[in-house]
Amino acid sequence: MMDFDLKAYVAEKREIIDKALDKYLPPIDGMEGRVVEAARYSLFAGGKRLRPILCIAAHEACGGSSKALLPVACALEMIHTYSLIHDDLPAMDNDDFRRGKPTNHKVFGEAVAILAGDLLLTYAFELMAEHGLEDRSGTVMRVIHIIARASGFKGMVGGQMIDLACEGKEVDVPTVEYMHARKTGALITASVQAGAILAGASESEIERMGRYGRHLGLAFQITDDLLDVTGSFEEMGKTPGSDDRKGKRTYPFLVGIEESRRLAREHVERALDAISGYDDRANPLRAIAFYVLNRSS
Amino acid sequence: MMDFDLKAYVAEKREIIDKALDKYLPPIDGMEGRVVEAARYSLFAGGKRLRPILCIAAHEACGGSSKALLPVACALEMIHTYSLIHDDLPAMDNDDFRRGKPTNHKVFGEAVAILAGDLLLTYAFELMAEHGLEDRSGTVMRVIHIIARASGFKGMVGGQMIDLACEGKEVDVPTVEYMHARKTGALITASVQAGAILAGASESEIERMGRYGRHLGLAFQITDDLLDVTGSFEEMGKTPGSDDRKGKRTYPFLVGIEESRRLAREHVERALDAISGYDDRANPLRAIAFYVLNRSS
Repeated sequence: MMDFDLKAYVAEKREIIDKALDKYLPPIDGMEGRVVEAARYSLFAGGKRLRPILCIAAHEACGGSSKALLPVACALEMIHTYSLIHDDLPAMDNDDFRRGKPTNHKVFGEAVAILAGDLLLTYAFELMAEHGLEDRSGTVMRVIHIIARASGFKGMVGGQMIDLACEGKEVDVPTVEYMHARKTGALITASVQAGAILAGASESEIERMGRYGRHLGLAFQITDDLLDVTGSFEEMGKTPGSDDRKGKRTYPFLVGIEESRRLAREHVERALDAISGYDDRANPLRAIAFYVLNRSS
Repeated sequence: MMDFDLKAYVAEKREIIDKALDKYLPPIDGMEGRVVEAARYSLFAGGKRLRPILCIAAHEACGGSSKALLPVACALEMIHTYSLIHDDLPAMDNDDFRRGKPTNHKVFGEAVAILAGDLLLTYAFELMAEHGLEDRSGTVMRVIHIIARASGFKGMVGGQMIDLACEGKEVDVPTVEYMHARKTGALITASVQAGAILAGASESEIERMGRYGRHLGLAFQITDDLLDVTGSFEEMGKTPGSDDRKGKRTYPFLVGIEESRRLAREHVERALDAISGYDDRANPLRAIAFYVLNRSS
């Protein structure tokens, strides 16, 4: 495990994902080309591809080789990107920068940014369904179901609503955890589970992968909050301290930096514990968990 | 055919659809309850339920009895409603009224309105996938595919992008037709085809239903434009003449009221022609085509 080269693994997968995204959503001519251009702007703005990589890594850990894997992995990145575009809008978090670049609405205007988000969300489902047309096992349908569920009001939409409702208010740790479990945790969990489902994993395997995803997602959010406090513009790609300025209740704000670090460590340990029964094929998942922990310390 | 009571048929189907929508998306507690409330506000704001009714009518015309019909019909209404909420936003068409009521963002604010649209779009796919989990025929997957395609940049999102790009510009009839075929025609066509596909219809039947849907959709748009010129606030539920004020290129603006009426008639005739081979079970589809024609004259 200690020998595993995560950097090389991530670089290899990123290239595969980036090529596939470019193939699935090429630029188009015509008056509607502008909205595709806007969607591609955010899709290729330097995202880490965490969700598709998790999906692929879980698939490999479960010994899968599904033809629908890459379309589903790309769909996850499209849904993630749509949520960033909409969250950054002036009416929402009103962010000018994302990953060190001007946000979508800053470049294309609000109307096109809203549509670019809508495009990515609908196209994610089109892409998955297109690659599920010949599937008679029901696995692609199940994947569409858990991803739609994780994206909607039981997941990301619900989490963003709670986030908006909490701004400037006194909230406690359970509320913040509940919000993050939906806003970012749900799609991360769905990404890992989708990979497992496509591999034909058993129910108990899917449950274990879900547990890994939930704890990884929370650890990821805590370390994100920590980076917002301790990081620089270069590390973050956005203005540090912006969460605090907007009166957001982050982990460091609520429990302090040291306790936040301890919590992140605990969630990473639980994520690792969930996949302890897997062989070396789960090493990418293990290495990602360590990476999430170390990025903020 | 002349005896067919469309009013009773529509009232009966509307009740079934409204009850199902209420069951599928009930109000929820918690901080995320607000976004569900906002989604329900627009979902129950007096929509005609044209798309779900077309889906059901096509299903009946093809002799179907699929258990997934009602979820798919409701998903179509959710996608239609999401598109209205986003199109009405200040950054888009900036409309204050819709169906005689304040638009979503006027009541709930822009942030919640954007999220309510996102909720309805994602939930439509969740609902369809949930009712497709046991399907091994591939029909539900195909329905999800055509509906996603009709909603995205090849359909509604593309149409809205073209609409925005055309505002205040000189455009010709083919461009306007191209825009409408995407903005409203695509989902209407998908609604009819989804009903046929779920009924296990043959490829040539699905093609005929698609032809019916395309011409009905164009007729519907032309008569909508006509109502915007000739209708009152009571008939429209929005301020008449609003399209023209925004410099939109409508059919009456481009070819005059009489030629618009002739075009609407021609499209309705073609829609009727597409389903001429069907027995009495297609009478609801026929009556809907006549209704679309007559509402503006």
